[in-house]
This record gives sequence, C-alpha cells and structure tokens, in this order.
Amino acid sequence: MKILILGGDGYLGWPTAMYLSKRGHQVSVADNFIKRKWEMERGIEPLIPTMPLYRRIRLWKETTGHDMELFVGDMTNARFVYNLIETTKPDAIIHYAEQPSAPFSMVDRSHATMTQTNNIVGTLTLLFAIKKFCPQTHIIKLGTMGEYGTPNIDIEEGFIEIEHNGRKDLMTFPKQPFSFYHLSKVHDSHNIQFACKIWGLKATDLNQGVVYGIDTEETLLNPHLNTSFHYDEIFGTVLNRFCVEAVTGMPLTVYGSGKQKRTYLNIVDTLQCVELAVLNPPAEGEYRVFNQFTEVFSINELANLVKNAAQPFDIKVKIENIPNPRIEQEEHYYNPKHQKLTDLGLKPHNLSDVLLDQMMKTVISAKDRIDSDVIYPTVKWRMK
Amino acid sequence: MKILILGGDGYLGWPTAMYLSKRGHQVSVADNFIKRKWEMERGIEPLIPTMPLYRRIRLWKETTGHDMELFVGDMTNARFVYNLIETTKPDAIIHYAEQPSAPFSMVDRSHATMTQTNNIVGTLTLLFAIKKFCPQTHIIKLGTMGEYGTPNIDIEEGFIEIEHNGRKDLMTFPKQPFSFYHLSKVHDSHNIQFACKIWGLKATDLNQGVVYGIDTEETLLNPHLNTSFHYDEIFGTVLNRFCVEAVTGMPLTVYGSGKQKRTYLNIVDTLQCVELAVLNPPAEGEYRVFNQFTEVFSINELANLVKNAAQPFDIKVKIENIPNPRIEQEEHYYNPKHQKLTDLGLKPHNLSDVLLDQMMKTVISAKDRIDSDVIYPTVKWRMK
Repeated sequence: MKILILGGDGYLGWPTAMYLSKRGHQVSVADNFIKRKWEMERGIEPLIPTMPLYRRIRLWKETTGHDMELFVGDMTNARFVYNLIETTKPDAIIHYAEQPSAPFSMVDRSHATMTQTNNIVGTLTLLFAIKKFCPQTHIIKLGTMGEYGTPNIDIEEGFIEIEHNGRKDLMTFPKQPFSFYHLSKVHDSHNIQFACKIWGLKATDLNQGVVYGIDTEETLLNPHLNTSFHYDEIFGTVLNRFCVEAVTGMPLTVYGSGKQKRTYLNIVDTLQCVELAVLNPPAEGEYRVFNQFTEVFSINELANLVKNAAQPFDIKVKIENIPNPRIEQEEHYYNPKHQKLTDLGLKPHNLSDVLLDQMMKTVISAKDRIDSDVIYPTVKWRMK
Repeated sequence: MKILILGGDGYLGWPTAMYLSKRGHQVSVADNFIKRKWEMERGIEPLIPTMPLYRRIRLWKETTGHDMELFVGDMTNARFVYNLIETTKPDAIIHYAEQPSAPFSMVDRSHATMTQTNNIVGTLTLLFAIKKFCPQTHIIKLGTMGEYGTPNIDIEEGFIEIEHNGRKDLMTFPKQPFSFYHLSKVHDSHNIQFACKIWGLKATDLNQGVVYGIDTEETLLNPHLNTSFHYDEIFGTVLNRFCVEAVTGMPLTVYGSGKQKRTYLNIVDTLQCVELAVLNPPAEGEYRVFNQFTEVFSINELANLVKNAAQPFDIKVKIENIPNPRIEQEEHYYNPKHQKLTDLGLKPHNLSDVLLDQMMKTVISAKDRIDSDVIYPTVKWRMK
C-alpha cells in the first residue's frame, strides 16, 4: 500500500514509518520539525539524541534497502498540504502531526490557542485536501483516551446507545477531556466525523492510551535508528519519567494520591494497532473509533512496578506523592472498553518485568545525559 | 450592572445593547466590523442600511440620554481583549462576536478554517482574559440549537443522565452539528465547560434557535436605530428570507422536502432570554446550558405561514421545493426541551399573524432595495 505518515519525525511517527516500510509498504513521511523547536523553547531534549530525519531515512535505506520519501512542511499551510496529497495520493494516511502534550497546552494562553489552532487547522486542511484529490483515502487519526475523561459509566469505543424517555439512538460518546490539548483532539474528532458524513470520506479515530517504551524491532536494527524518548514534564509520559527518576535516584513523582487510573500500551503495540487499522479499512463514509490500549493501571501501580523493576539493578526507589499539578478526579470509576482492535487480531505486549528491565537498561546506559531539572511539574492547571 | 456586549454591531448585539442600556445597565460594546467586510466579500448587504455603530451610539444617547462606550477591536487579538477586559471588568459579558453563518463556513477550506479559528481563538482569548482580570464575571455565550443535530431521542438542555450497564452519570449531551460553523460552537462549548471546571469561571451557554424579526421596542424609537436584517443565502435566516421572497414575487425556496424541523424565536425573545440569564447568574465554577427558543416548525409550516400572511397584501405566494444544498435529515424525530428559561420567567412572543404582518410591512416598505440575485443557495454541503 501507499502510506503517508504525518509527523514522521516523532516518537511514534518514525517507528511507524520503519515498521510499515519493512513490511513492504511504500511509505512517505512528512514533518516540519516544530516539535524540536518546542523542545528548545522549554529547554528539553530526548534522553538519547535522534539524528536529523533526512539522515535516519538514508540510514534506513542503507540498513534495509527500503526507500522512504520525506516531505518537509507545515500541515496548517494549505499549499504544502494540497501539494503533498496531490503528489502522494496515498491509500492510507496516518496522522500523528499534532502538538501532543497536555502540559504544553496548559502553559498559558498562547500555548493553549496555538495547540488548538495548530491541531484543528492541520486536520481540517488535510480533510479538504483528501476531499479534493483522493476521497477514497483512509485517514487514520491519532486521538487519545483522554478525550473521554473519567465518566462514572463504562467507556465505549466512540459511540454509545442511549435510551432516553422510551426512545433510542446511537450517539457519539460524550467527551470530558483533561486539557486544552485533549480538547483539541475532541474538536478534531467532531470535525472528522462531519467530513465523513458530508463527503463520504473514511476515517479511523484511534483513541490511544499513554504509550511507553523505546525499542521496536526496527529501532534495534541500528542504534541511530532510535526514536525520541522523553522523560521531562512536558513531553515525557509517566512510565518513561518514573524509569528516569529511578535511575537518577530521585523519588518517583506521583501526582496527587496516585489513585487516578489511565490506559497504557507498549510502543510496539501502537505499531501493531496502526497496521491493523491500515489493513482493515472502514467503508466509504464511515467514521469509526477504536480505543487503542492494552492495560489499565493507577499511577501508584506504575510506581510500584518501576520500584520492583529497579531492584535487580540495586536501585532503591522512593515514591513521593506531590501536589497534583492537574485538575482531575483522583478516585473514580474507570472501565474503558477495547474490543475492536482485539477482534482484528491485536496480540498485546503487556507491561511485564522483562519489558521494564529493557527500559531500565537503556535509561541506565544514558544516565549521564539525564537532566533532572526538567522533570518536576511546573505547569499548573488551576488558577495561580 | 456593568455589561459588556461583544459583537455589538450585529443583528442581535445592537438590539441587546439598547435593551439593556434602556433598563439602566451600564453597557459597553465591542466590535471589529468584520461581518460588514464578509458581507462585501459575498456581495450582500442588509435589507435596510444600518448606520456606523459610532453614529448609532450617539443617536442612542440623543434619544434616551444613555451612554454606551464602544471598543473597536478583534477578539482574536490578545492585547485588545486583555485591555478590554481589564478596562471594563464587567459583571456580565454577552458574547455574540463570532462568525454566525453555516453557509459561510461551508464555502471552502479557507472559510471553514477561518470560522473555526476565529470563533475558537476569540472565545479562548476571552476566557484567559476573564481568568486574569475578573474571574467572577458571568460569561453569556451564544451557542446554537444546531449543536445537537437531530437525534432520535429528546434533546435535553446541555446534559443528559445516561444509564449504561447498571451505572449512571450526568454527561454532556452528545453533539451532531450541521456545519463547520455549528462545529465551531460545539468546540467553544467544550472549551468553556473546561475553563469553568479548572478555573471556577461561571458561564451560561445559550443554545439558541433560529431568530426572526426586525423590530424591538428600542429599534422603533428612531428609524436609524434599526438593526441589520439579512435575507440572503449566507446571513439570511429562513423566515426573513421567505418574507422577502414573498414580497418580490419569487417562489419561497424550501430546501429539500421541507419536512426538517428546527427551533425558532422572535428577536424580542432573544433580548428577554439574555436578560434573564444576566439577572440570574450561575454559581462559581458552574457551566450551564439553556435551550433558547420558543417554538418548533418544519420549513413547510413556515412557508405556509408566510403564504397566509401575504394574502392581506394581495400577494400570491408560490412554494418551491428546491434541491437541498445542505446535508441534513429531512424526516426525523425532534423534541428539544426548553424549560429552564421558562422557569426563569420567559414570556414568549409566538409567531402569530400579527408579527408576520409587521415584518411583511417592513419588507414591502424596502421592496426597491431587495437584491433577488443573492437569495438562491449556491453554497453546497456535498462533494462537487
């Protein structure tokens, strides 16, 4: 298949590109590298440097013989996007090209509005370009489980049948997102659903859990094919951050009581899920939603897993409950469904000691690069 | 009360400003006049010219003795908005300052993205300014009944209790909007609800039906205090358009089968509803939703009402079903609730022959100004 990956320089975009390229698909990637600029603005960088994307693509060709084409540009620039879509006319587009951080969106007004305009306009522009040049293209859009929030009922996959006053309808599942970033994904979801309805486009909205991990089959082919691994307060996800804190000897920073539950998946399962979506496209005009995760943990459970995983390395881990910088329910019901990807054949890689062991080893090998000043949360949700 | 009206030059903004000023409130208005520019871009104008807002404000002072302060600027310009809110620190803000047309948002990519960025960024900027300078201010935001679409269940006011697999939660009512414009209002609603949750702001989201009518008690004080009356395909609402079509001898252009039902209210009831919201503010941190309309009609019912109202003027009206430019269900269940404003004391002015009679007279008096070339729908929802 001809597959275009938007945000190909990113934590998930790059491994996805290699994974699908390795499996014989004709892969193109696009990026404008703005996330690297955002990192500089906050004074942060990945734990292990990643080479320029041009160079990694050449290395990929040398390593595997597979070509990958790179398009450099901004998804909010309509001329770029229209040229990109007209040139590539892909069978599937995997859209990771958004500002991906909740704390970044909560820094201040300009970060909130930038996050929403960047994400919404990029996706709208893509939808109009697909409508114009290749309406049969399958759009695979990365959403987030954080769109749903923590309702007191089971979370279904995108839609819920509501019975009310003796009548029924299948409705979009109500959204209660956690941040201006999560809100931008809610807005995208509504826009994409509408585009499918009026233009007959087809889309899969992947409401993904928190991704952890650093290695995939393809990143292990060469150390310089690595992907970015963040542990900072802005782009670092919680499990990655805990591993780094353990290795530096810092206490694990649990936000609030740590009882809040979230969904998680290994980076290798992200690749598998995206592939399953690509290989099993929806019907024309169909907008479908998959809840993309494999396990549910509380923050305390994750902290204890890391604590145990650190023991073989003679690392004694302290766990510290710090004031929660976010506004979120800490004690809540949480039962999100995730059947659709399983039905398509997903074989989960659960969070076992073996996986954490590998992550710990990688972090230990880069211990001298850890900047412990960028881990503690400084971005606050509530009023000053 | 100190009341700030955003979009004070508009169809509803100006009558609202006069109405509240007359009742002793200290009213300020803001506008950047971009809607007048949008009208020029599409080659349209109101049926009866409206004077520059500066001049209408002077005339208001001469007529009633009441002062009204005008601030000229763009709601997406943070410096303007922050200065505006810091200077006025109002008790209530009535926010009409958005791109208000569904067809305008459906013209093409640039109109869709402009509508969403203009409306979302304007509202986000306002929320941040209120958070900074006057978090106790009551935000009254104009939404639309079109956020809900036409679900097969009763439409509640903003929230619905969902019972699912033996558990219950009060959830936001799922949204199925009709256009990129209606989507922008859905996005606003989600953003405002979140701001109330995390910062303790208080907001009333008025999901308003289609407004008709031209006269209010205050516009009738002087012919030059009139508000803009649109009958064109872009900014003209259906009843206004039908009256103009009747007077010109054109057939009434019913979109599709005409069986689609919508909610309606008289412009004088908009003023009453907004006043009721102002006088009965929500609690700190509360985000509430009122469904703001008084009656439900199908398009065919409206066409027949206009046909009957035209008889006393010896006007024979033809009704024509034209291909529906929109994508919408034409036969559907529709039972939206509207109890909360009634509970606060709303006394509806229903669509009777008397009201239509006045509208017909006004349109007849301006018959020579009607541009019959701008009525037929040219903006299409579906793929070309």
